[in-house]
Amino acid sequence: MKSAIEVKVRYQETDQMGVVYHGNYFTWFEIARVQLLEDLGFPYREMEKKGYFLPVLHCSCDFLKPSRFGDDLRIDVNLLSFIKIRLSLMYVVSKENEIIARGKSTHAFVDRNGKARKPPPYFQSKCNRLN
Amino acid sequence: MKSAIEVKVRYQETDQMGVVYHGNYFTWFEIARVQLLEDLGFPYREMEKKGYFLPVLHCSCDFLKPSRFGDDLRIDVNLLSFIKIRLSLMYVVSKENEIIARGKSTHAFVDRNGKARKPPPYFQSKCNRLN
Amino acid sequence: MKSAIEVKVRYQETDQMGVVYHGNYFTWFEIARVQLLEDLGFPYREMEKKGYFLPVLHCSCDFLKPSRFGDDLRIDVNLLSFIKIRLSLMYVVSKENEIIARGKSTHAFVDRNGKARKPPPYFQSKCNRLN
Amino acid sequence: MKSAIEVKVRYQETDQMGVVYHGNYFTWFEIARVQLLEDLGFPYREMEKKGYFLPVLHCSCDFLKPSRFGDDLRIDVNLLSFIKIRLSLMYVVSKENEIIARGKSTHAFVDRNGKARKPPPYFQSKCNRLN
Repeated sequence: MKSAIEVKVRYQETDQMGVVYHGNYFTWFEIARVQLLEDLGFPYREMEKKGYFLPVLHCSCDFLKPSRFGDDLRIDVNLLSFIKIRLSLMYVVSKENEIIARGKSTHAFVDRNGKARKPPPYFQSKCNRLN
Repeated sequence: MKSAIEVKVRYQETDQMGVVYHGNYFTWFEIARVQLLEDLGFPYREMEKKGYFLPVLHCSCDFLKPSRFGDDLRIDVNLLSFIKIRLSLMYVVSKENEIIARGKSTHAFVDRNGKARKPPPYFQSKCNRLN
Repeated sequence: MKSAIEVKVRYQETDQMGVVYHGNYFTWFEIARVQLLEDLGFPYREMEKKGYFLPVLHCSCDFLKPSRFGDDLRIDVNLLSFIKIRLSLMYVVSKENEIIARGKSTHAFVDRNGKARKPPPYFQSKCNRLN
Repeated sequence: MKSAIEVKVRYQETDQMGVVYHGNYFTWFEIARVQLLEDLGFPYREMEKKGYFLPVLHCSCDFLKPSRFGDDLRIDVNLLSFIKIRLSLMYVVSKENEIIARGKSTHAFVDRNGKARKPPPYFQSKCNRLN
């Protein structure tokens, strides 16, 4: 229940402090999350087509060191918990093997109208096995 | 067939050159465009609900002077042309009465699936009258 | 030690779920924070010129209800605490008087090179008085 | 004088029309441009450290087909012209070998204060040779 992705910091992601704007870390978390779901056999694109959505209920990030334009970063993602329709994930951002940020996000499975919806059975069994 | 909006430059919109990242001007153009449509009696939010969409076919911008965090900008928008399903608009960005950028965009009326769709009759008559 | 701002949701801020992308709330928090600093007599633009920077050490947000394109939102910001060089703020996002999100951020005063720096004395006295 | 990069469309890059927000193409162009400069032996990160900046004077894009979350895109970039301090580039965005967008950008070499500055001699000779 873990995955990792790599991103190279885009110029667009910097701000006038000369470092990455903090809000952009959540975009990287999302890329890692999408990868984790894909690795688990649930491409998010397909999930949405089948009417499963995973909006963010909560997210947070601790910024230990800045990241800069051109940096090669690695984002590790782990499943923290999966209870009923709620999924919690943890993220670690590293630069040359040094951790520069840590984050979390919590999501709920909902349908197209935002109502709680049980995740696909296969997803449940896969996660429960590993919980 | 003209409108204007005001924006205050957000920190998030700057990049490490200390000025606004160029791509963000297109977001401001969009705000001005939405205002123009609303002033014409076509709130974009309502249009989408009725199945009218206005994707961007072309956009461009000339950057004369930079803009910076905290700047108070004015974006003027004008209808350039409206032919069949195509709408062309022109934008002027000013800072303290000095023009700092000029842009254009072209749009087509399409339906939910991206197929060409005649604009609402009232829109046609309103624009044709002023063409 | 409180301020409030208003934002109208931009089309650019939405994602394909039809609601505002979660990361964008942090941009609104920043606008509210800048306003609070300005109301306290510390325009952030001036602070940076004098070599004071306020990078984000931590941020979080709880999303209670989605927000959508065209929504008129109000963001209230409060000073939670100010200890030595650390500033903590709290944010409440409302839509038609209903709270739709709550957030927090923590910042440190640093110099141009990212080293801890005591805030301007006037800032200290102003905040301490109200702590 | 050509390079190419690949990007996978991020969820954050979509809007409520279910496709990529048009302004984001300029971010991809920038990634391709940075790659071209690096391939030519001028990492943009180093250039800025040496006081060379390349702000955008003009940019445009024609959108032929939409791109969507998860799409694997290729962005080809070509040097169109290099005259004195001005650089013009052309971009082609493809999806599974089909061209979905074409763009252009023009830049000027400037110094830290935004004043025109001759590019590094080695850059001049390299580009002139290929013009």
